[in-house]
This record gives sequence, C-alpha cells and structure tokens, in this order.
Amino acid sequence: MASKQYVVIGLGRFGRSVAETLFTMGHDVLAIDSDEDVIQNISDKVTHAVQMDATDEYALRTLGIRNFDVAVVTIGSNVQASIMTTLILRESGVKYIVAKAQSEMHAKVLTKIGADKVILPEKDMGVRVAHNLVSSNLLDFIELSPDYSLIEIQAPPEWYGKNILELDVRSKYGINIMAIKSHDDINISPNAKDMIKEGDVLLCIGNTDDLARLEHMISGD
Amino acid sequence: MASKQYVVIGLGRFGRSVAETLFTMGHDVLAIDSDEDVIQNISDKVTHAVQMDATDEYALRTLGIRNFDVAVVTIGSNVQASIMTTLILRESGVKYIVAKAQSEMHAKVLTKIGADKVILPEKDMGVRVAHNLVSSNLLDFIELSPDYSLIEIQAPPEWYGKNILELDVRSKYGINIMAIKSHDDINISPNAKDMIKEGDVLLCIGNTDDLARLEHMISGD
Amino acid sequence: MASKQYVVIGLGRFGRSVAETLFTMGHDVLAIDSDEDVIQNISDKVTHAVQMDATDEYALRTLGIRNFDVAVVTIGSNVQASIMTTLILRESGVKYIVAKAQSEMHAKVLTKIGADKVILPEKDMGVRVAHNLVSSNLLDFIELSPDYSLIEIQAPPEWYGKNILELDVRSKYGINIMAIKSHDDINISPNAKDMIKEGDVLLCIGNTDDLARLEHMISGD
Amino acid sequence: MASKQYVVIGLGRFGRSVAETLFTMGHDVLAIDSDEDVIQNISDKVTHAVQMDATDEYALRTLGIRNFDVAVVTIGSNVQASIMTTLILRESGVKYIVAKAQSEMHAKVLTKIGADKVILPEKDMGVRVAHNLVSSNLLDFIELSPDYSLIEIQAPPEWYGKNILELDVRSKYGINIMAIKSHDDINISPNAKDMIKEGDVLLCIGNTDDLARLEHMISGD
Amino acid sequence: MASKQYVVIGLGRFGRSVAETLFTMGHDVLAIDSDEDVIQNISDKVTHAVQMDATDEYALRTLGIRNFDVAVVTIGSNVQASIMTTLILRESGVKYIVAKAQSEMHAKVLTKIGADKVILPEKDMGVRVAHNLVSSNLLDFIELSPDYSLIEIQAPPEWYGKNILELDVRSKYGINIMAIKSHDDINISPNAKDMIKEGDVLLCIGNTDDLARLEHMISGD
Amino acid sequence: MASKQYVVIGLGRFGRSVAETLFTMGHDVLAIDSDEDVIQNISDKVTHAVQMDATDEYALRTLGIRNFDVAVVTIGSNVQASIMTTLILRESGVKYIVAKAQSEMHAKVLTKIGADKVILPEKDMGVRVAHNLVSSNLLDFIELSPDYSLIEIQAPPEWYGKNILELDVRSKYGINIMAIKSHDDINISPNAKDMIKEGDVLLCIGNTDDLARLEHMISGD
Amino acid sequence: MASKQYVVIGLGRFGRSVAETLFTMGHDVLAIDSDEDVIQNISDKVTHAVQMDATDEYALRTLGIRNFDVAVVTIGSNVQASIMTTLILRESGVKYIVAKAQSEMHAKVLTKIGADKVILPEKDMGVRVAHNLVSSNLLDFIELSPDYSLIEIQAPPEWYGKNILELDVRSKYGINIMAIKSHDDINISPNAKDMIKEGDVLLCIGNTDDLARLEHMISGD
Amino acid sequence: MASKQYVVIGLGRFGRSVAETLFTMGHDVLAIDSDEDVIQNISDKVTHAVQMDATDEYALRTLGIRNFDVAVVTIGSNVQASIMTTLILRESGVKYIVAKAQSEMHAKVLTKIGADKVILPEKDMGVRVAHNLVSSNLLDFIELSPDYSLIEIQAPPEWYGKNILELDVRSKYGINIMAIKSHDDINISPNAKDMIKEGDVLLCIGNTDDLARLEHMISGD
Repeated sequence: MASKQYVVIGLGRFGRSVAETLFTMGHDVLAIDSDEDVIQNISDKVTHAVQMDATDEYALRTLGIRNFDVAVVTIGSNVQASIMTTLILRESGVKYIVAKAQSEMHAKVLTKIGADKVILPEKDMGVRVAHNLVSSNLLDFIELSPDYSLIEIQAPPEWYGKNILELDVRSKYGINIMAIKSHDDINISPNAKDMIKEGDVLLCIGNTDDLARLEHMISGD
Repeated sequence: MASKQYVVIGLGRFGRSVAETLFTMGHDVLAIDSDEDVIQNISDKVTHAVQMDATDEYALRTLGIRNFDVAVVTIGSNVQASIMTTLILRESGVKYIVAKAQSEMHAKVLTKIGADKVILPEKDMGVRVAHNLVSSNLLDFIELSPDYSLIEIQAPPEWYGKNILELDVRSKYGINIMAIKSHDDINISPNAKDMIKEGDVLLCIGNTDDLARLEHMISGD
Repeated sequence: MASKQYVVIGLGRFGRSVAETLFTMGHDVLAIDSDEDVIQNISDKVTHAVQMDATDEYALRTLGIRNFDVAVVTIGSNVQASIMTTLILRESGVKYIVAKAQSEMHAKVLTKIGADKVILPEKDMGVRVAHNLVSSNLLDFIELSPDYSLIEIQAPPEWYGKNILELDVRSKYGINIMAIKSHDDINISPNAKDMIKEGDVLLCIGNTDDLARLEHMISGD
Repeated sequence: MASKQYVVIGLGRFGRSVAETLFTMGHDVLAIDSDEDVIQNISDKVTHAVQMDATDEYALRTLGIRNFDVAVVTIGSNVQASIMTTLILRESGVKYIVAKAQSEMHAKVLTKIGADKVILPEKDMGVRVAHNLVSSNLLDFIELSPDYSLIEIQAPPEWYGKNILELDVRSKYGINIMAIKSHDDINISPNAKDMIKEGDVLLCIGNTDDLARLEHMISGD
Repeated sequence: MASKQYVVIGLGRFGRSVAETLFTMGHDVLAIDSDEDVIQNISDKVTHAVQMDATDEYALRTLGIRNFDVAVVTIGSNVQASIMTTLILRESGVKYIVAKAQSEMHAKVLTKIGADKVILPEKDMGVRVAHNLVSSNLLDFIELSPDYSLIEIQAPPEWYGKNILELDVRSKYGINIMAIKSHDDINISPNAKDMIKEGDVLLCIGNTDDLARLEHMISGD
Repeated sequence: MASKQYVVIGLGRFGRSVAETLFTMGHDVLAIDSDEDVIQNISDKVTHAVQMDATDEYALRTLGIRNFDVAVVTIGSNVQASIMTTLILRESGVKYIVAKAQSEMHAKVLTKIGADKVILPEKDMGVRVAHNLVSSNLLDFIELSPDYSLIEIQAPPEWYGKNILELDVRSKYGINIMAIKSHDDINISPNAKDMIKEGDVLLCIGNTDDLARLEHMISGD
Repeated sequence: MASKQYVVIGLGRFGRSVAETLFTMGHDVLAIDSDEDVIQNISDKVTHAVQMDATDEYALRTLGIRNFDVAVVTIGSNVQASIMTTLILRESGVKYIVAKAQSEMHAKVLTKIGADKVILPEKDMGVRVAHNLVSSNLLDFIELSPDYSLIEIQAPPEWYGKNILELDVRSKYGINIMAIKSHDDINISPNAKDMIKEGDVLLCIGNTDDLARLEHMISGD
Repeated sequence: MASKQYVVIGLGRFGRSVAETLFTMGHDVLAIDSDEDVIQNISDKVTHAVQMDATDEYALRTLGIRNFDVAVVTIGSNVQASIMTTLILRESGVKYIVAKAQSEMHAKVLTKIGADKVILPEKDMGVRVAHNLVSSNLLDFIELSPDYSLIEIQAPPEWYGKNILELDVRSKYGINIMAIKSHDDINISPNAKDMIKEGDVLLCIGNTDDLARLEHMISGD
C-alpha cells in the first residue's frame, strides 16, 4: 500500500492543520505559501515546504504539480488567488482538488472552474459549535445528513443505574445509543443490558428533530 | 421550556455562522461587532445586532450583558480584543463563556483568565478535513476521543449484496457499523441481516487504529 | 425599432468610453461604479448613473438588472470583483454578458463562469498599435482574421500620377485597394482608372504576409 | 532591408502587448519599466529588457536612446512620468515618439511638448467595443475617418442565396461590400455575381450614417 | 555575594531606563527588543542586547531564559505581545516576573496569567507629579500607603531661625520632620534643637490628610 | 484659600493621571487633547475637557490660557507639538510651565524656550523600578539627592523581636529607621524601644552607598 | 488707476506669501487650494479664498477665470497638477501666467505649454543665501545680470572716518557705492564728501568679479 | 586667503541650491541628507556628500562638525529634526549657524536655541515675486530695509530720448537712478547727461512709498 501525495496551498491556521494532520497520518505532503516565515515554521512538520506564489503557473508546473493525487487549496483571504490557483491546478492535471471558500458565491465560482469539492470550514464549524452550545449536557453535535445527526450527551442523573432497555430511548425519542464513553473506556456496541453510570457520556444517533427533543429534555429548559 | 439567551461577539465567518445557527434553532441571540457593515448584514438573521467595541466595559454592561446565559467570543484576528472582552465578560457575571483562540498560547491565556471552554475551530476543522481526504471512499471522519473515532465510508463494491453478518467487520477490523445511508433513507439501527447495496454509505465506529486499517483496505492503497 | 438597454459596470477610461459611446448612439445606458466622483462626472453622459458595489447581489437585483439586454463588465483592476459581478449577472438572467479580462487566465475564469464574450482591450490595442508603428507610411492596421488584414498607407511618391490599373498591386502584392482617402474626400469604390495623387491615403486588404511585403516596400526598409 | 529599433517604455498590459508584437514581427525592441518583476516576466519576449526610471535623463542617455528609430511611451497611470519621459526623449534626438495619454488634457500636453503621435487606447477601444455591441450581427466596427467607417456583419438570413448585384447594398444603403469571409476562406475582391451563403461574414465600407442604418436593419431593432 | 541576572524585554524609554540602571548598579542585564536600531543604541550600556521577537517561545528558550532571576516585561504599546511574553516567561520557569501594564484591565490579565508584580508607571508618575505641582514650596511627594505619605517642602520664611521644638509640627500638623537638606549637606536624624535656616528643604512624614493641611499652609493658598 | 487653576495638555496615560489626580485633590483642571475620543473619556474626571490642537495659538488664547496658574505639557510622542505648545504658553503669560520630555535633547530645547521645569517620567520611573527590583526584600527606593535615598524594606527574620536600640542600624549601616509599617498601622516616630515584629516594613533613610550595603545584607546575596 | 485682478493657485508657504503680499499692496486676490484648512487660514488675508481642485477645468471656468489679469500657479509638490492647471489657464484666456517649477525639466514643460514666466524660487533663493554667507561682513547679495550684482556690506573698520573720495573704491575695485545705511537713516545719493561712520552699511554695485574681490578684502580671508 | 568650510544639512531644492552655489564659488562644502538617493545625485557637485541622520549627535561629532565655519540647516519639512540638529550644532561649537524656518513660530524656536540667523526663504521669495508682478514694466523689486527698496523697471516710452537731468525723477518721485542696463551693457555710474534709450532697464533706489508711486505711474494703472 503506497501512501498518497498531497499538496496543500495556503498555510493559514486551517491549511496548516490540514497539512500537519496528513503528514502525521503518514502521507507525503508538499506545503506551499507565499510567506517565507510561514514556510520556515512548518518546514519540519511536512515532507516539503516551498515559498512561492501559487498563481504563478510556470512555477507550479516546475514543481511537478500534475503528479500529485490531491491538491487542497486553503488560501484564506485572497479570493482572486484562490480562484486562479484552482484553475491552474485543474488545467495541470491534478486528479482531485479540494478548495476552501469564503462565501457561497466564492464556492459557486470554485465549482464552476472545476474544484471537485468545495468546503466552507468556518461556516460548518460555526454550525457545529452552535449545536454544542444549546445544552450544557450536550457535548458534541454532528450533522450526518440534512435529517439525521449524531449527538454526544452527558447522561442525565435520572438515567443513572438504568440499562438501555429500561430507558427505551428508541421508542421515547426515536433515537439509538451507539456508544457509551465511561471515564476510562468506550463501549462501541452497547447492548440492552448495559447499565448507565454516573459520568457516562452517550453517543446517540437519530432524526434531527427527535434529537432536539432529547436535547431539550436533558438540558431541562 | 424557556429558550436561552446568547451573545455572540465578533462576526467573522465563524461567528456569523454560530449566531445564525443559534437563532435558527429558536434561541435569543445578541450579535455584536465593531464594524457597522457587518451589523447591517446580520441584522435580520439574529434577535438583536449592535455595533460596538466589545472591549468597552461600560458599553457592554449597559447592554445588560450579565443577564445572558452564554457568551461566545469569536473575535477573529485581534488577540488583545479577544482577551480583554473575555475578561470583561468573566467579571460581569456571564454564566458560561466560550472563546475562540488562534493558537495554543492564546488558548492558554483565555483559560487562565476564565473562559469555560476554548475552541480552535480552524485547527479542528483542518484535522477533520485531512482525515476525510485520505481515501476517496471515506466521506467523513469524526474523532470521539483520542482513541475512538467515527468514519463515514462509501461501501466498497466487494461488499455489495452481503449482509452485516457476512461482512463481519467486527471481528475483521474491530469496528461496528452504526448506520447505513441509502440514497433516500438512513437506517440508524442496522441488524445483522441488513444487506449492503450499491451506493450505500456506512457510518462506522471503532478504535482509531482499526479504522485506519479499514480506510486503507477500502481505498485500495 | 426599440433601442436596447445596456448596463456598464466599472467606469475606468475604457468603461467610460463604452458607456458614453453607447449613449451617443441613442441607447439606454445604466452606468455603475463604486466611486461617487466617477458617477458624478459621467451622470450627464448616460441615461442613469448609480454609485454602488456591483458585488452586492441584493443591490444589483433591486436595480432590476435582469431586464437589461446586455451587461458590460469593465471592472479594471479588481479581478475578484470582476468575477463575482459576472457570476451575479449570469445568475440574474441578463441575456448577454461581455466582460473585460486582465490576462488570459482571468479570461478563462470569466468564460467558465458564463461570460458570453471576453475581451482583452489593452492587449488587442497593443497589437494594433504595434502594426501601425512599423512603417511611417503605414497609418493603420486592422487584423480581420489570423490570415487577412486591412492596412491604411500613405501612397508612396512613385505611385503619384498612376492609376490603379497601372500600379497593378493585385498581381504584384496580392492585395486590393478598397478605398482612397484624399484630403477632402473618401472614394469607397475605386475603379481601375482612378489616379493616385500626392497626399492620398490608400486602404488595402490582403493576406497578412502579402501586406507585410507591401509595408516593407513602401517604408523603404 | 534592415529591421527598425524600437524602445517601449512602461510595460503595463498595453505596453507589453506593443513590445511583444513588435518583437514577434522581427524588430529589435528595448523594453523599459521601473518594476523589476515586470522586466523579469518580459525578458525572453523582447530583445532587451531594462529596469530603470525613465525620468532619469542621464540613465536614458547612457542606453544610447538617441539611436532608436521609434520610442513608444506607454507609461500608464503616472502622468508626470509620462510627460517628463516624453520631453527627455524629444530632446535626446529620438526620431519618432508615440505617447499614450489618459485624457484629452494629457494628450494636449504631450502634443505641445513634442510627441509625434498621441493615442488614447482605452478610449478608442471603448468606442470600438460599443459599436460591436449594438447588434449581435455586427462583429466589428472600425472608424476610418470622422465620416467613413468599416463594419463587419453577420449576413442576415434574408440575404442567403442572393448575389451582390441582387442585394444592391450600394444603392439601398450607400455602402460597398469589400470582402466576404466564409468559414474557411476570405474573398477580398468580391464581384457582382458572388453569392452570399449562410454563415458568411461581410466586411462593408461606407459613410458612418449609412452604416448605422444598415446596422439597425440587420439587428432588427 | 553574587550579582543577579536580569532580563528586560521591551526597550522603550521606560524599559531602557530600567535596563541601564540595573547595569549601572552592577547587575547582569540581558536587553531584548524587536527593533534592531534600539538594540544597537543600548548595546554598550547593558551586558547583552539581543534583537528578537519575544513572543517566539522557541527563541526565548534558546537564550536560556529560565536561568534568569528576574524578568521585566516593559513592552510598551503592544498589549498582545506583553501578555504572550509574560505567559511564555511564566511557563519557562523564570523566578520573578515584573510586567508593565497600560491599563487596569491589562494589569488584571497580567496578574491572572502569573506576573508576580504589575506596574503602571505612567499612572504612578502622573500621581506623583500632580502632588508635586500643587505648591511651589512642595518639592516632592511620595505615597507610602493609602494613608501615609512623605513630602519634601521648602521651609517657609516664618520658620527661619526656629528649631524643631519651637516649630512643634508634630502637635500642630501631626507630622514628623525626618531630614533637613541644607545647600551642601543632609541631616538624616534631626533633633529637637536643630535650627531651620533659609533655603533648607524639609522631608516630612505624616498622615496624608495632615500633610495636605501643611501643604496648604506653606503654599499660602 | 483658593484652589489653583491647572491646564494639562496631552492626555496620554501620564497626562491623564496628572489631570485626574489634580482634580481629585480639589483643583480646577482644564484638560486638552487633539483626540475627540480621549476628551470624551476624561470629561467627567476633570473640570473642563476641550478637543483642540494645542499648537493653534489663536485657539489657545481664546480659551484664556494666560489666566491659568500652571500649565503641564504632557504631549507624548510628537516632539514638534510639545515644543510649539510650550513656546505659545510661555509667550501667552502662563505663570509656571512644566513640560514632559522624551530625551535629554528634547529636555534641553524645552528649557531653552522657557519651560520652568522639565520632567522625563519614563526615565525617572525606570530608575526607581530598577532599584526596587534588586532585592526581593526591598519594597521601594526613592532617591532624595544624588547622595541620600529612602528605602522601604521587609524586616529580615533575624531582626524579629529586637528593638531599634538593639539593632543599632545607625552605627552598623549609617542609616536611620524613620517609620515602621505594621500590617494595620504606621508608626512615624519610632523610638529606641520599639520592637520589630514579623511582617513589619521599615522605612529607612541614609547615604546611598550605606543603603546599598543594607540592601545586600537583607537580600542575602 | 484701477488695481489688477490676481489669482494665486496653490497656497503652500511660497504661494501664501505671494497672495498675502499682493493683497497687502491693494490688489484683488483670489486664492485657490485643494485643502479646506489652508483656505480657512488665508480667508481674511485675501479678497476671496476658494477650496477647489484646480485641475477641474469646468470649476475653474465657473469662477470666471478668464477675467483675471494675472494667474500665479504656485502648486508645490504635484507636478502633474501644476502642468494641467497651467494648460487650463492658458486655454481659458488668462492674460499672463507665472508658474513655479520644481526642476529645470519641469520648467521646460511649463514654458512649452504656454507659461509666460517660470520661476524656481527655492533655487534662486538658495543662490542668494549662499552669496550672503560667504562673508560675515556681506549682508546681502543680489544678482542684476550674469555680470553685474549688488552687495550690501558692513563697512570695515579701516574705512571709518574716510569719505567716499578718499576711499576711491571706484578705481580700486571698479565698483560704486550707491547708498549708505546708518543706524537710523538711509542716504540714497551719497556724494564724494560723505563720511563713512562706524556701523554704516554700504550698498555697492559692480561687476561680479570686482565685487568678489571686495568681498574677500573685507572678510579678511 | 583660505576658503571657508561649510556644511549644508538637508538637501531639498533650497538646500541643494545653497550647497551647489557655495561649491561653485570655490568653497569647501559638506552636504548631508538622510536620503541615499539625494546624496548620490549631489555627490559630484559638492566637496563631500554624506548620507546620515543629522539628529544623531554622535554621528555628527564623528564628522568633526565643530571644525566647520558655517552650518546651514535647510531641513525642509521636519520641524523636529530642524530644531534638534540646530541644537546639536550649537553645542558642538560650530561658529555660525543659519537655519531655515517654516513659520514665524518655528523661527522663534530656532533663535531661542541659538541659531545666529533664521531665514524664511519661501516667504521672502513670495514677497519679492509679488512685487515683481504688479507691473509688467517692473522687472524686479528688492527690499533693502522696511523703508527703502530697489526696483528694476523697463523705461517707459515717454522717457526715451531724455537724459536723467531732464527726467528729474529725484524731485518728481524722490528716487535715484543707480544703473542703466542697455541690451549689451550696464552703466553703474550714470550721470545727468546720460540719455535713456528704447529698451533700457533702470535700477532705481528710493523710499518704498515713493517707489510705489513710480510703479503705478509707469504701469499706467
């Protein structure tokens, strides 16, 4: 099994995190930014780090950009550079291009000029954080589809000492408990007899509306 | 059940997303930013929008800031303003303060001066996007704990027509299939006899290392 | 016969010339620029002049932009604004969009997001001026196709007193004399007996290579 | 026949196009700009490229500027530099000076201090583009004199299958058809029996007012 | 007795004075600033002077910052840098940290993140200068505690020729005369028989309110 | 007894502290700064606050500046404004002018153009802070003359339970104990029998060199 | 005798001095500058003061500029504005135009576009000041022509008590004494018997070389 | 006779003219400016040219500034630098200091800190130019004292053919004709019989009011 070749262009906080995570996972990562200081800081956390202007088509080609499997365009604030770089990559023959957009309009342009996937990380993260805030018992919220989501909740005191069968969240709320995190362990295939203990965190899946009802119940609002 | 009162300070792309999502979920949201244009744009997507300098203690108190349940400090690029605002909120009696940090160092300062929760959204989103990239079959990756994660994968062709019992991913990879998304439905409590069809997306939970092995298998690397 | 409705966005020297010419020709012209002074200066030379940010989708729609027949995006130096404005116009339902590009790359983006015609005026004008310079007798040069062009030349002294038949430029150079400009008249259908006089300017059509040979002959290089 | 020596000063989009076209046509071109990056980019598309301040009289003379046949001053936005450079060139003994102006006033100054020809490319190009826009059938418009112009039009359907004699545009509109461009050929001396086919493009010469009537007819306004 | 090791970070007028005074007193002083010119100017008035960004944790540690006895953070106008530097120093193991604050709010942050002492020099100096101004006879004023202060006054003419016993300022004003400065001497243990002469300056200690009454008396207001 | 009239020009941190302290002490204070925000912030902490350019001679005279007893020129960073304002005040007839200087050179200019007193607060404060740092037992240090100073020290453990007579600091160190601060009291005329207790702070006067020896003894260096 | 109408455009230190002097001499002066503050300051020292952009041809004409007798273009640092304004004035019909130039090159442009007189005040003043410096006895130097100058000198001690006949500067130095300034009087037609007294200042005319010899004699170099 | 040593600090248009004129007159001139380009341009027109900050006392002394006879401080726009440099020069022992001021207030400061002579060249030149403008016959005007001036006038036609005796300007206007400039000569000691010819220019001295009457007479106002 050969690791893949990634190029990450634009090393703001988001791009840096993408590049360093890919490298930590064992992949080859070429990191590109126009700022010399940024390149110095990341140089020992990726395979290669190069200071260059990614809108300079000739320079990009010189780097053999077409041999990369995936390009991630995480150029932050310069919409023009983000668009131009994505177009150059598309024409250079890179197989898969992911590009970060600032706005829905920017996202549309990126899609039209050929980005395979466009992400709006700040917007997505904002949605997730907002859901996590609505109840102090809700630890995390992840949208799986427009209708279904995952939530991680602090088990409410009235559930302590009861097992999953007794709680019957399936029929009461239309949701399933998929994992139980205890303070030193995680049970990823809980069965009906598993008992909820004080301090347990429950990972639940369900219809978004049903989850909202559960959230409200446990937050006691 | 009364809805909660939220104040979101700093309306960059991330803060705007937090504020608008909370409002859409039915909560009272006061949005604050120092830029008049930003306030105009968000005014009909939150309960109230106020243009002010959030480091002006007197002005914040005049708004009755202490009556809010949760404050979210999403001031983006100005570290000083982020710290000063968080401190003012802490001293004003706000119950729960979430603050966005730019760096680990910034995060430490926010914790020391009293933020209840500190988030690094660009960094977290970068980690998630990196995992989603490593296989074209892997659709999403969510870390539940340092050891356990969720992944969403495109079912590989060799699984088509087999049921969960036959696939036996539990013993082969140490993971559980928690949900099956078909093109028009989501099955959140799959049982052993459920058949995998072409186009199905599987939501799996497991030990992070085991999931990595599964990722590599399905990506054919 | 109803005149058409034009909107010209971006009033630099080029955009202003487009807008004023269209208005002089009797068409309705809405001129848009983000600079208040520019709008003041052009206000009595077009039908309407509006100061606004053309990347503000809502504001553009409020102007009823979709009712215009032709939109000309002549935004000069801001590539991002040029792209965003073109995309908004495309989605608003404007029938025909002409956009000015700064570079070949910019032109490609504009085409991909839906501009019907993309022009590079400075580049085109530079080509034309260069041709006009190569001979002091060559007054103008216009490329009709990659192979055929028009040139305007000062008649050389050795042609004075000869008629078109005698000169026989058709067989000598493979070109045709299409018009003869005398100091107070222009003859647009010259015939074989028309005599060339001192000071006459000849408009010739021909294969570009043949014209080059003629240019060299008359410039005496 | 010796090629001429050109110097082009100011390498914006227009100046670059002039310089590169002259070089492509086989002439010696010295390109001058004050920006080092600009010089690097053009260096292999002209004979020589020099980074210098063209208002530095001593430096210009050191380059042997007086030996050039033609100087083209295409300094874009800096009116003062444009004027000073033109004056230095005039006094240095350059034979022929073409200078680009921003405005009519700028053009007057350039003429008074000795430019042999002054051009307003953005304005001229704007006029041409405006004419090209008024009818989707009109492909190009070129002003020959204040009274006479050339237009290139898409032959209207009602002309298909008719020859020039039958159409009789001379008496109907006072214009002459000077060339017929078919999809793979150009006929530069059409005669009365030549038939107009679907897809033909006609190059017409005539009095500007007459051409306007023809434009209106074919655009069906 | 070994001299101590000091590091002074931020060399504005205040920081420079701290660093130079410590060095003059015979201590080892490392002076740090981000401005190369500032470092050049101070280099021969301290033990070592280093140009660096003090918020660069790695660089600070490389200097062996943890071996210093006392760090003085006198970063002037950049609140963020002041906070980050103080936090890095705290975590590096420096024994004692003094930090300069711009405002009460800044001071609170510095205390919370671990500064041992926070000073507001401009504010303190302003208080002292104000007191010194209120009487032309009052030469200096130093607050010892919220209640007690020292003042230095010009002896009023009516006291000339009287001794301390006769003046009896203890019972009249509740204050003590602690020293008498004559034009060429200072008497630090004045006794009851010591005579006040023209030109003497008296150093008095007392309750702040009592001193204020004395000030008013001698200023004749 | 009438209070005096003060005008403070330049409301940086130092100037603001001077102005507010004078007002708190019961004097009339006119505060002047060129920044409208600064004036708003101080307006209820002084008698009058006026936004104006203090180098505008006519405006200053209109305020009746000549009627003020004391002018304090605390203009911070603009040396030219500091000099011009001081000169205008001198010529307007203000009785006593105190001016803040940035450097020794600036101080000389202010003296030559007529300032009655010139202060360098950052430099003076730096000297004082440096002395306070040299021993963790030394709480404060105040220079009375080039030879004599005051120090405030934490009583060392070996002095607990001894009276002043027994300690005999007069003969051992050549200094006098002028006051003893206990945790809830201050004794400003200590006599020979007064006992030193744990936690006492001693205010000592003496020759600077003698005090330095005492400092070293108590700091145990 | 009617006074003349002057317009002075550009109110730097030189322009202001021209405008105010003309007004003081009893002439009508219109003062124009683009800076509102400058106009406020000069408004009561000229007949009219108007804030406007002098390169705005329409605005200048609206002021009735063609009715002025003399225009003085004293625009300081903006060469482009100086040239454009001068050209507009020339075309508007102003009778006499004086323009200030920054450099010899600027002066040439101004002359070519029609300024009647071009002055280089800083250069001329520099020449005069340099001459005045070469001898401490030489009080002033004024060049009348390339060959002849005026100088004002302090009479040297050896001339005291001698009359003009005895001194015979005519034959010794080739110069004439034209006036004698005593401490309270000026004698503008000195005759041969007039005696030179201590403190007298002599105004001499002569050939520049002869004056230089006199300068050297009296300066004792 | 040894030539003098001059240092000119600040090489704007005025300072450059002073420095170059002194050098042309044969004196040693050291020219100082903070701008490297300015120094390059003047380097071969003065004895030495040095790029440095003239407010850097140490650097100035290193140049041996105290050995210069005369220092001319022609620093243009930076009032602070002008003041500081003048003070450093005064303290360094330079014998004679001339300083250029921007305003009357600036001039006062320069005098107070020790400049021997302060000049306001733009203001003085403005006065002179204004006088030269009031009559087209008046060629130049030079103020000798507040009461007496010199004027240079074009002889009016009615004086042609008359001698000085006949004109009798002494009794008619109270002025003296001191020199007569003919087209190729200058007569510096005109006598009563000298005849005025067409084209002669007369240099007159007189009381300022008398000269004004003469000016009005000859200008025919």
